[in-house]
This record gives sequence, C-alpha cells and structure tokens, in this order.
Amino acid sequence: MTGQKADKVVTAAFLVIGDEILSGRTKDRNIGFTADYLTSIGIDLKEARIVPDDREEIAAAVNALRARYDYVFTSGGIGPTHDDITAECIAEAFGVPLLLDPRAVAILEAHYPPGQFTPARQRMARIPEGADLIENKVSKAPGFKIDNVYVMAGVPAIMQAMMDAIAPTLATGKKMLSRTVPADMPESRIAERLATIQDTHPQTLIGSYPQADNGKFTTQIVIRSRDEAILTAAAEDVARAVAELSG
Amino acid sequence: MTGQKADKVVTAAFLVIGDEILSGRTKDRNIGFTADYLTSIGIDLKEARIVPDDREEIAAAVNALRARYDYVFTSGGIGPTHDDITAECIAEAFGVPLLLDPRAVAILEAHYPPGQFTPARQRMARIPEGADLIENKVSKAPGFKIDNVYVMAGVPAIMQAMMDAIAPTLATGKKMLSRTVPADMPESRIAERLATIQDTHPQTLIGSYPQADNGKFTTQIVIRSRDEAILTAAAEDVARAVAELSG
Repeated sequence: MTGQKADKVVTAAFLVIGDEILSGRTKDRNIGFTADYLTSIGIDLKEARIVPDDREEIAAAVNALRARYDYVFTSGGIGPTHDDITAECIAEAFGVPLLLDPRAVAILEAHYPPGQFTPARQRMARIPEGADLIENKVSKAPGFKIDNVYVMAGVPAIMQAMMDAIAPTLATGKKMLSRTVPADMPESRIAERLATIQDTHPQTLIGSYPQADNGKFTTQIVIRSRDEAILTAAAEDVARAVAELSG
Repeated sequence: MTGQKADKVVTAAFLVIGDEILSGRTKDRNIGFTADYLTSIGIDLKEARIVPDDREEIAAAVNALRARYDYVFTSGGIGPTHDDITAECIAEAFGVPLLLDPRAVAILEAHYPPGQFTPARQRMARIPEGADLIENKVSKAPGFKIDNVYVMAGVPAIMQAMMDAIAPTLATGKKMLSRTVPADMPESRIAERLATIQDTHPQTLIGSYPQADNGKFTTQIVIRSRDEAILTAAAEDVARAVAELSG
C-alpha cells in the first residue's frame, strides 16, 4: 500500500449506482465485497449508498460523499448503453468536460476486431478530463479515478478486478482487528455485562449480533480495536462474562 | 392497501443501521428483500443507505431521508444491548423524548417469565413519544412508526415479519410493471438500437444488464412502465431488435 500511516484512520464511502438494485431485480453483491476488502487493507468503510440512474442523484451523492471521506468508490453505470450515465454525471459533479480519452480509445480499439469499435462502444472511452484510467482485465473497458473518486463497473467480477488494480495505490491506516466470542444465549441475558465491559474498554467497539436458529436465540459478540493488547483484554472480559452466564 | 392512487407515485428510502454491515462481518439481506417487497406493492424505492452505529450519522440520515421521500424504513439497532442506539437517535432526530412505553412494556412483560423483564430488556420498550408500535410476531420486542419513519429490527426474519405487519397500512401507487427480454449478445452490440427505442418510448425505463457467463457475454434488457400497453409496445420493439441482431 502506498502510504500506511501507523495511527491514521483512512475512511471511505461506497456508492452503488443503478435502478436495478433499487427495483430488486438485481441483488447487490458489491457492498459486502467492498466492506470486506477495505477492512482487510486498513480502510474504514463509513457509509454506503444506492442511488438510481438519475443525473442529479448521482452527482449530488458523489459531491456529498467526496467531501466527507478520504475515498469514494462507485460501482455501476459505465457500460455502452443509453442508461449508463455515470461517467457524464461524475464529470458534471466535478465541473469538467467528458472527453473521448485517447488512452481508453487505444485499449478498446485493440480489443475489438477491426471496424467493430462502434459508436456505442466509443461511449465507454468517454472519461472526465483529468482522470486516470483504472485497468479492467476482464472486459477491457476501463474505469477511472478523478481526485478521490474511483469509478468502477457494476458487474461483480469486473468491479473486483478493478479493486485489485487500484488497491496498491491507496493510502491505508492501521487495520481494525476483531475477535468474536459466541454466546449460547439471547443477547438480552448478557446485555448489562456487555455495557459495563464497553465502558471499561472505551478504545474498543463491542457489538452484539443476535441470531435465531430454529427458534433458539444465540448471540455473536464482536470486539474491535486497532490495538492488539486492548482487544485481547476486552475479549477476555467478554469470554469470562459469557462463561459465568452460561453456568 | 390504505390509499392506492391510480397515478400517484409513492416513494421510499431504506436506511440500514449497523457497523457490522460496513465492516463486512454481516452481509446485508434486508435491502434486496425491501426492494422486492416495495416494488411488489407499488412503492418506489428511490435510495438506500447504510450508516454506522453512530448517533449523529443516524439522526442526520433519518432527517435527510424523511424530508425527501414519502416513507423511510430503517433496519437495525433496536435490540437490548448498549450498541442498539437507533430508538434514541430517532427520538433525537424528531426532537421528542424517548420514553418507556406502557404498550411495549405490557407486550414484553407478558413474553418473559415473571421477574425476567430485566433492565436490559426494558431498553426494548423505550419508544419515542408519539410513536405507534409495529408488531413483532417473531420475538415480540416491537418496532415503531413515527410520522413517515418505520423503525424495524435488523434480523431478517424479524424485519420481514414487521414489514408484513405494516404493509396493509401503507399508501401505494400504481405498480411499476416490467418485462425482460434476454439477448444472446454483448450489450454493446444492441446499445444503439436500445437508445433509439428508449427515445421512441419516453414513458418507459429501459435498462440493459450485461452478464458474463464462462467468458460469454449476454444481456438482459428490462423494460419498465406503469402502463401495460406502453410496456408491451416497447418490449415488442426490443424483442424485434434482438431478433434482427441475432440473425
């Protein structure tokens, strides 16, 4: 990673663009992937949004998110069809023209048989002025990066390949570590003890996640911290509480 | 449904609350469910957001969304543990006190064995002043509705039961209808025809969704409209274009 800072927290938002997710036709698979990916490299995903294929909504969301977080990652809407309007909306959000990019043209011309780099396919070479390209090993049509905004495809395999391409260039912070303690009881039974443990260890984030399996309630208790020793101390307190309440 | 209006469009936003979704630990299953559900009853989901268990973030998102859409649905953060802060954040967003609600107390007291309605469990009976309860058939602890905001549990089975409980009370609009035309070709081959068909049928929304199956690119073309005849005409044009380009 480019600039790992020992104690810096690096933040990100993820913006999913597409009517098909909001109509339920397509089930999003990119948010979960991105959450896992960013956590694993030391970037904190602080917010995710899904917006429709609507010019104003996309531009407004990009501008709101890029002002608040170190990075904004988007997926969706950069293909060759009329409903792929992400590139023009990002250009609009940044107030720059959308141009036929010679680098993108070269990549796509080399990819298609002679004479088949049609006007529709040329849409995929329109890149906001000043942006860098993001490599697409799967289907060639590139994504792009402008300032702190990374614009990627919506198809999961392509989006994941693009994330692999950009990850080495991202600044990252100290990784959030986590420990999970399973509790064979409903969370309401351990709630008061957890509140006390959270108060005792303010540098941790203690989350309680109930599950219902065949009518039986169990709880996963997740302790998170960027400091291994603090994490261990809090996890031991949680494990002790679980053992005492199980007895 | 309470008030189905023939030509009215009813809009909604869905707000998922929880660190565990943003860290990747838990994969959200509620957005896809809600998107399907709302579409099926004639409510347009226009935006979804995921925010962390953070007081200011939750209150800010609720206030932003409830001002823009007819309905806001939330999931997550209404359990008995210290990290369940949704109810207090909603109360804060509305500027009303969070009170121990006698109706919720009665439900939960009846549910637990005598003497086991502990202080932690009493947390689940704290409801913003003026809110109505949402029935929870699965684990009893109710959700609530205040103004146009519906606050539900994060556990999918419970959230789904709560949605069933509130659906009959929601105003709905004319349902969005859809037709899917599969095309055995990459979307770039049909892109120009689709743009023309979209221009010819401005009262439809035509979406093009590429898929990569074992390296072979195919496309699903989805036509949407609230009018059956308009939908059929546009879908026929799309099917004709697919047939001609396949030949």
